[in-house]
Amino acid sequence: MILTVTLNTALDITYRVRGLRPHASHRVTEVIERPGGKGLNVARVLAALGHEVTVTGFAGGATGRVVQEQLTATAGVVVALLPVAGATRRTIAVVDQTSGDTTQLNEPGPTVTSAEWSAFQEAYEDLLRGVSAVALCGSLPPGVPVGAYAGLVRTARAAGVPVLLDTSGEPLRRGVAARPDIVKPNAEELAELTGSHEPLRATQDARRRGARAVVASLGAQGLLAVAPEGRWRATPPARVHGNPTGAGDSAVAGLLSGLVEQLPWPDRLSRAIALSSATVLAPVAGEFDRGAYEELLGRVAVTKEACVA
Amino acid sequence: MILTVTLNTALDITYRVRGLRPHASHRVTEVIERPGGKGLNVARVLAALGHEVTVTGFAGGATGRVVQEQLTATAGVVVALLPVAGATRRTIAVVDQTSGDTTQLNEPGPTVTSAEWSAFQEAYEDLLRGVSAVALCGSLPPGVPVGAYAGLVRTARAAGVPVLLDTSGEPLRRGVAARPDIVKPNAEELAELTGSHEPLRATQDARRRGARAVVASLGAQGLLAVAPEGRWRATPPARVHGNPTGAGDSAVAGLLSGLVEQLPWPDRLSRAIALSSATVLAPVAGEFDRGAYEELLGRVAVTKEACVA
Repeated sequence: MILTVTLNTALDITYRVRGLRPHASHRVTEVIERPGGKGLNVARVLAALGHEVTVTGFAGGATGRVVQEQLTATAGVVVALLPVAGATRRTIAVVDQTSGDTTQLNEPGPTVTSAEWSAFQEAYEDLLRGVSAVALCGSLPPGVPVGAYAGLVRTARAAGVPVLLDTSGEPLRRGVAARPDIVKPNAEELAELTGSHEPLRATQDARRRGARAVVASLGAQGLLAVAPEGRWRATPPARVHGNPTGAGDSAVAGLLSGLVEQLPWPDRLSRAIALSSATVLAPVAGEFDRGAYEELLGRVAVTKEACVA
Repeated sequence: MILTVTLNTALDITYRVRGLRPHASHRVTEVIERPGGKGLNVARVLAALGHEVTVTGFAGGATGRVVQEQLTATAGVVVALLPVAGATRRTIAVVDQTSGDTTQLNEPGPTVTSAEWSAFQEAYEDLLRGVSAVALCGSLPPGVPVGAYAGLVRTARAAGVPVLLDTSGEPLRRGVAARPDIVKPNAEELAELTGSHEPLRATQDARRRGARAVVASLGAQGLLAVAPEGRWRATPPARVHGNPTGAGDSAVAGLLSGLVEQLPWPDRLSRAIALSSATVLAPVAGEFDRGAYEELLGRVAVTKEACVA
């Protein structure tokens, strides 16, 4: 069983409109809804790969009920969301059919009370029992302390459960210092954490800050992994075109499943790249194209780099 | 008891954002939700005026559940919505705090099956018993036949219940021919119905098409009423500035309450104008400012016009 934590779950709503113009009225021609938030996306991909996965985090209000119902109907996913008095946020992606552009409207999410946050920490400790790995993903909702992930990393380490952290800003900075097993920043998050725009230098700096392994996602240039076992670059066989929504979460699912299956690093990275590319190629945002995944898996180039201290 | 019909109920969601720009990502700073659709707005104002009111129409899916719950919590409103398999629509008004502009995104609403439409017609006939007036308001959801309002007008007339119709386009054209007691088109709807942009001529033409009385809402110029009892113009004491959302629905509530209380036409029109202006002045869209309403009520100018055939 793998556990994924999504403190700021969401209902992701996609609207199609013809030509978005400010100050005008628009008829929405298509509405698609699905549970969102990075940890839920990771869980869906893990379940599709055949792993048993439990999702936790918060859900509240009418939107939280929809998220809960849709997740419960997802095969292979055990739902262990905690109730909050506030309403789970909606994110609305308005896709302009004419230009293909997407305009995003993100609700702030519920304000979590300190009692709700305490209840979560207790439930989390219970859920860690018998779990083979945990992923802590995404932004913090209002009310949750900025050091939240640092605390959750420490609890996982105390329980002997490998922990992957995928967040940004101050929660990432504090979380890294608590010594997670893997962090997966993108180039921007890595630069914000370390002050360096040079990926290799920044990745090494992130390790010095406390992460056991750092896997930096560098967009079309693939992944750069620096771990105690060595240093690798993994690149996709070809540039893929499509919707990048959820590609980073699919990479996390690849890394986490590889960790649990005790695959060597090159295989974990190949899987992460193939899943990520297959997600960009899928027609529905956040899903992955299984045929593309299987085809890409053998074609990812992974090169080991000489380690220079 | 007054009955209002809202076949295309909605959850009206208002988002505040700072500077809406297509193709950008926006943090929503405030979220307000309330049941919407013209008949529900009319009912809320009638209830605030002290009338008992029943609301009917369709509600479905998670959004329908929210509409149902919020309405049930509204004092003075009896909820008699019928279930549909499809999901009640959301309308999203994105208010740009910088410019004050509103951008509207309207979901299409559920497709009503013929079985659901039949069930509604039966329930409507039952609800008409013991009702003193009925208002038929707003657009038709997909699946409901274009002659729906004409049928509902005929059923009300057969039951001896006075009926007010407030819709547009072909449903209005067909509905008028079924001889409703009052229609309340705005200038645009009236021009579309009659082909004339001259309000007096168009209003008279709408009566010839079947409406017993026509009350045309002409924006800042107030109301023009043509009825068997005479012809009146009612104008607000001053131009009001604010949010016009729901102002037309408040005017309908004024006309309908005046009809039920058997007020003479000038008093009905004063009430409609005062409620409408007090709605524009209210800080929350669709609510009315009671103090402003009471203050304005005595200051509306109503002039009787000579009747020329």
